[in-house]
Amino acid sequence: MSELYLNGPKLLEQIHALGKIGADALGGGRTRIAFTDADKAGRDQLVAWMHELELEIDVDRIGNIFGTLRACDDTAPLMIGSHIDSVTHAGALDGCYGVLAGLAVQRAYREAGALPARSITVAAFSNEEGVRYQPDMMGSLVHAGGLALQAALDTLSSDGTRLGDELRRIGYAGDLEPGAIMPHEYLELHIEQGPILEAEDTLIGVVENLQGISWQQVTVTGNANHAGTTPTRLRHDAGYAACAVVTEMRRLARDSGTTLATTGCMRFEPDVINVIPRRATFTVDLRDPDEQRLQQAETHLADLLRQLAEAEGVVIETEQKVRLEPVIFDATLANAIEASAGRLGLSHRRMTSGAGHDAQMIARIAPAAMIFVPSRGGISHNPREHTDDDQLLNGARVLLDVVTQRLGARR
Amino acid sequence: MSELYLNGPKLLEQIHALGKIGADALGGGRTRIAFTDADKAGRDQLVAWMHELELEIDVDRIGNIFGTLRACDDTAPLMIGSHIDSVTHAGALDGCYGVLAGLAVQRAYREAGALPARSITVAAFSNEEGVRYQPDMMGSLVHAGGLALQAALDTLSSDGTRLGDELRRIGYAGDLEPGAIMPHEYLELHIEQGPILEAEDTLIGVVENLQGISWQQVTVTGNANHAGTTPTRLRHDAGYAACAVVTEMRRLARDSGTTLATTGCMRFEPDVINVIPRRATFTVDLRDPDEQRLQQAETHLADLLRQLAEAEGVVIETEQKVRLEPVIFDATLANAIEASAGRLGLSHRRMTSGAGHDAQMIARIAPAAMIFVPSRGGISHNPREHTDDDQLLNGARVLLDVVTQRLGARR
Repeated sequence: MSELYLNGPKLLEQIHALGKIGADALGGGRTRIAFTDADKAGRDQLVAWMHELELEIDVDRIGNIFGTLRACDDTAPLMIGSHIDSVTHAGALDGCYGVLAGLAVQRAYREAGALPARSITVAAFSNEEGVRYQPDMMGSLVHAGGLALQAALDTLSSDGTRLGDELRRIGYAGDLEPGAIMPHEYLELHIEQGPILEAEDTLIGVVENLQGISWQQVTVTGNANHAGTTPTRLRHDAGYAACAVVTEMRRLARDSGTTLATTGCMRFEPDVINVIPRRATFTVDLRDPDEQRLQQAETHLADLLRQLAEAEGVVIETEQKVRLEPVIFDATLANAIEASAGRLGLSHRRMTSGAGHDAQMIARIAPAAMIFVPSRGGISHNPREHTDDDQLLNGARVLLDVVTQRLGARR
Repeated sequence: MSELYLNGPKLLEQIHALGKIGADALGGGRTRIAFTDADKAGRDQLVAWMHELELEIDVDRIGNIFGTLRACDDTAPLMIGSHIDSVTHAGALDGCYGVLAGLAVQRAYREAGALPARSITVAAFSNEEGVRYQPDMMGSLVHAGGLALQAALDTLSSDGTRLGDELRRIGYAGDLEPGAIMPHEYLELHIEQGPILEAEDTLIGVVENLQGISWQQVTVTGNANHAGTTPTRLRHDAGYAACAVVTEMRRLARDSGTTLATTGCMRFEPDVINVIPRRATFTVDLRDPDEQRLQQAETHLADLLRQLAEAEGVVIETEQKVRLEPVIFDATLANAIEASAGRLGLSHRRMTSGAGHDAQMIARIAPAAMIFVPSRGGISHNPREHTDDDQLLNGARVLLDVVTQRLGARR
């Protein structure tokens, strides 16, 4: 087995080049929302780079792009995947880093004139961000059989467009049936998008699981009365009830240690200084890597809402917006990642992914795991998203090492 | 001394007629914001009714309208006042009831062919609501010398207009110097705008004081981070800090019994479900009839904000928007109101005004007190504002009785 070398400059060059496509006029970010002209431009660039590596290129009917470095045999490939669509005013790394690092692994084989024991397929999944068309992680979800192709194609955006029409318009409605390329194993390299690795001065995150997510929208309806003339005992204050929920769920999160609870959206009506709020609408984002603890948090929230509705004399309604069970990644792959990080002398820790990733969908059909590198300040979905170049290269070297340990490299 | 009779049908007819001026296209309310064309139409109607009663009519330089039933002597008048401007989509009673009940008192003298021992002046003060131009209660504040005339005239609206120009435009920039008509005593009859009289099945509120008001706008600045990847201990959550304030101030209000605490406005930024709020902006409306207890509540809030800023690692800034000390109304007048209610066999209770009124400004320069009648459901500043006709007439009869007890009625 030959030693393979990562072409670091080429990887960084491609990250920067892809990051210029869809550049925002102001603010230093870029916007390549799925199935827009900017997304098409990014896809065209990726396909051009896949051609340079002489990969077999396939596009499936939901627009997922696959570039395969074919081994001698015809068995299921090792797949390295992520996405190249973005949110509005995004950084250059979220998703793109993982796809381009996959190309860098394939390039290492090409530059060494070597072949892996099993084909290596790099996948760029459609619409991971879910900005225009929901749900997010859509391409990998369809690939894994979790969402019917036709339902995905028929998804409508709030701008009135149909996903299937937009996909055809940009020329990426392929012929391949979703799921036709079944991975033997799946790896995804990604920036952490959180502050933990930086805070602990650690270079590599060995991602062994991914939190379950519960998103609820809560609407509290009380009575709008005069702030100066309504005694506290006669109030039905929707705003107070909403704030009491936020305060108590924070307490639960603080005491739990694993459960996260966030209220990102909050609106009062009529939103007037001297009027007791008639309505408060807010979101509760609960996460936990353990399904049972996630359910306990949901139960605690439901009990709390019942108690508050009675005590304050308000009506509380909830709507479940998202519910995903936790994902436990493949232990063998996680051990392999940990071993590679150790072999390369890079500090590392086991960790949980707080964000959702394509890997969680592929984990339904194949052994999967993820590698994280630090995000400065934990910032992502923002032009200020940043990981140092040497940290990016460390992550790609771990990925390459895991692949070569598993697939070898024969000339 | 002759017995005087309230012309109830005429009073109700005028309330209904004034309520039709500035009627909203939908929703059954009316909108006569100060210094608009609709306000001019309401003023013109009031002045026409004053002419019918053969009153001496004066308009001062801030647009306050005075209609005086002249007694034989030339001493300071008993003044009955309130306002006829409105909020957006208002009820028909707030303010108008008190002004038109004043006319009803004068009418009782006219219809009896009698004169009071002292002149009776009905005042309609400009811009009590403060919708376009702040501060509210502006006309009575200028009358009492608490705001310089020129400063008031130079007030700009968010629509770019200058108050003095608008006042001239509608033809109510009078010649009288503000404060020229100095009341000997001042009475104001008003709907409660709160739920207490209705909840206690009481007909007349003897208003002996008026709460102090402290309005603050609070801005919390933290860090916007990912809801899934940021551990609770590393959060700087502006939204949580804001909600903790609301929850704690409610506890203070509940335990205090006299202090009221309300958060009517609340905004989160960026207001995205899976992003920890970077900024929360909210209001705190504190009220108490006792200045010392109001200061204690303000101190508690300030201490709380300091603690939260340190514990959560956020920056908290406050801006005082309004600060009014409590007003204690004249005991002699309050006793007179109570005696009249008793004489007329109407259930009554001493109470505190939770809302601000012109009476609190006039209390700076003359003995003043207020009479309240019930508001159904405590609702005001809303088309659903309602007081039963017989309750309105009860209040006007108390007003007439207080006046005749003090001024007599000689033919």
